[in-house]
Amino acid sequence: MRVMDESDTPSPICLLTDFGIADNYVGVMKGVIQSIAPGAPMIDLTHDIAPQNVSEGRFLLEKSISYFPPKTVFLCVVDPGVGTDRRGLAISGSEKFFVGPDNGLFSDRFRKSDAVVLQNPDYRLPSLSNTFHGRDLFAPTAAHLSRGLPISNLGPSCSDPIILESSVPMKNETGWIAQVQYTDHFGNLVTSFSIEEFLPQLRSGEFRVETEGGVHWPFVTTYGEVPPSERCSVFGGFASLELSLNLGNAAVETSLKTGDPVYLRKC
Amino acid sequence: MRVMDESDTPSPICLLTDFGIADNYVGVMKGVIQSIAPGAPMIDLTHDIAPQNVSEGRFLLEKSISYFPPKTVFLCVVDPGVGTDRRGLAISGSEKFFVGPDNGLFSDRFRKSDAVVLQNPDYRLPSLSNTFHGRDLFAPTAAHLSRGLPISNLGPSCSDPIILESSVPMKNETGWIAQVQYTDHFGNLVTSFSIEEFLPQLRSGEFRVETEGGVHWPFVTTYGEVPPSERCSVFGGFASLELSLNLGNAAVETSLKTGDPVYLRKC
Amino acid sequence: MRVMDESDTPSPICLLTDFGIADNYVGVMKGVIQSIAPGAPMIDLTHDIAPQNVSEGRFLLEKSISYFPPKTVFLCVVDPGVGTDRRGLAISGSEKFFVGPDNGLFSDRFRKSDAVVLQNPDYRLPSLSNTFHGRDLFAPTAAHLSRGLPISNLGPSCSDPIILESSVPMKNETGWIAQVQYTDHFGNLVTSFSIEEFLPQLRSGEFRVETEGGVHWPFVTTYGEVPPSERCSVFGGFASLELSLNLGNAAVETSLKTGDPVYLRKC
Repeated sequence: MRVMDESDTPSPICLLTDFGIADNYVGVMKGVIQSIAPGAPMIDLTHDIAPQNVSEGRFLLEKSISYFPPKTVFLCVVDPGVGTDRRGLAISGSEKFFVGPDNGLFSDRFRKSDAVVLQNPDYRLPSLSNTFHGRDLFAPTAAHLSRGLPISNLGPSCSDPIILESSVPMKNETGWIAQVQYTDHFGNLVTSFSIEEFLPQLRSGEFRVETEGGVHWPFVTTYGEVPPSERCSVFGGFASLELSLNLGNAAVETSLKTGDPVYLRKC
Repeated sequence: MRVMDESDTPSPICLLTDFGIADNYVGVMKGVIQSIAPGAPMIDLTHDIAPQNVSEGRFLLEKSISYFPPKTVFLCVVDPGVGTDRRGLAISGSEKFFVGPDNGLFSDRFRKSDAVVLQNPDYRLPSLSNTFHGRDLFAPTAAHLSRGLPISNLGPSCSDPIILESSVPMKNETGWIAQVQYTDHFGNLVTSFSIEEFLPQLRSGEFRVETEGGVHWPFVTTYGEVPPSERCSVFGGFASLELSLNLGNAAVETSLKTGDPVYLRKC
Repeated sequence: MRVMDESDTPSPICLLTDFGIADNYVGVMKGVIQSIAPGAPMIDLTHDIAPQNVSEGRFLLEKSISYFPPKTVFLCVVDPGVGTDRRGLAISGSEKFFVGPDNGLFSDRFRKSDAVVLQNPDYRLPSLSNTFHGRDLFAPTAAHLSRGLPISNLGPSCSDPIILESSVPMKNETGWIAQVQYTDHFGNLVTSFSIEEFLPQLRSGEFRVETEGGVHWPFVTTYGEVPPSERCSVFGGFASLELSLNLGNAAVETSLKTGDPVYLRKC
């Protein structure tokens, strides 16, 4: 078993939590990481997941992974079950690592991956609190992985991780129905119509994008194709169709929000 | 007098301020640090201390120190007296360093520590503004300490630092009274009942946790022992008793806030 | 043409955007940077520029540059025209680098600087989205500059960058009129009266600082010269005159905001 040389640089650790940044929670996790893996680059993906919203955490994690270098450790803590008997997991797959609670956050990570249950007491803080496993269990685990610890050292293989269902567009008699999956800082409403599957239908001009009440969101290639404040729909940075107002905030200026239906309807 | 070799890596600098992150204040402090100590790891503890709230800064600092590696420099700027004749301090103790204004932020740091007044003009920016010593004085000082400068180079010993009183639980005829010391991002109300002193009383079942009006907060080991949205009290990540709603926000859903009384009462 | 050695440490990258930090946008930009320039120090200047507010971004950038070390790459993305034919730029000047959209963000950067248009497809992600050039174009460019890539490799010289007008104080019969240029986290109202040009007039006592309705803001050297909650004006950390309430929030407690007029009037 090979453990990283002391001279190697630890690999990057990417943090995703629902902790916000007003408290010292994220800071102390980083202190723990630097105590174990000095010099490990630490990157904040976000700490503004809505409290305990596992599916939002899963969504932003999945949309981010491919942009990080190999060996990156994703340290993800959205953990409504902290202190109960929910398990902690480490996962290795696609040349990256994932650490966090077993609650569905990693639902899309298990194909062709190895997962273990975090049971080895050597890789956590000496005392485990009942409310903050991010600091006591998950941060130390991520730091050890960043230094090259083989995942199998952390505990036994996990054969039955929790996997939540995906929200996928459904076909109906006039086209497809999907949902708003995420609302971003600019008020863009990100749907589950992926560019891979739905670019042809929208490019063809045979379908139009609508929300409840037949409200039309003209499909464009770039925001600037419609006047300021006008509705449009565009394949955005998440590689999914987004509903937007050019230079405006669609979430604030319409009543739409995450979970609302979005339609592709035959013209 | 030994100054760090150029080849040594600077030690981590941990930042705690009330600057928020919307302005460029934290960013320019980091630019100053990197100009003096290139490659120094910089960790944000928090920048959301309530403006000029020294006691909140002191609380979060104290609850964080032990999680950081030896030689960490804590750069703390909550500074209502900036520009007046309040002194700047550097403190060395418990293998760590502390830099900031002399206003009580470091009240718990002076036992068995060395403190000096920042008077040596060699370790600040050439021009000292009257409103932003975080950038002009404290960041350069922290960067030089991170590179190994002996604290005694910074100025004369300080024998009379400002020390604020601590908020400790008081005994009364029915038990103890303490206060909410801090309210976190999840709405947990952190009291000054420490786990070291009060775990036995609460475990024994002889005392119950109450707030004004006899409202009962059942003592549990983990949030999940009560149903969603129900009140509980638990020793949390701050190693103090916290009042919480399981999966809810106690601060928002009750009228309780920092400073309010909390009681341990004989059952 | 010399490209940086693999063994050299990449130079720091300083990020300024209007992306906020709730989404994964800043995080994925950093993932892209670390994939190209592993170990590059990354410093957040701010991500809270008001959405699409180019002049606010320009203001905070200009007030920050001098505090960063030579070779720092400023990665600035406030980009209302993303996806249209607005150009991307890289600029080299004052021993620093600047990368972002050609929309006026860099208006003050072009004297004695070299600017190029980002046209070389070798230095961007393989697929360029229409909504997120921060990730696909500007972050990779900044990472390559951080590793020492000569700016001329990125594309042809730019001779006609967009330059926006500056807001400068204007003389009138009773003195000068300027504007509030920026409002900070503490509610300080930063004007365009610079310390270089206006310190003598204010020190002389011949002029007083007023806002609409003849409201007087006594000129002081430090906040503490007026009682708590009282109005004052002071040359602050931006090296410009600021209107403040000592230990209070001037923006919240008056009706003043960015863009409002401020007067120096003969006493």
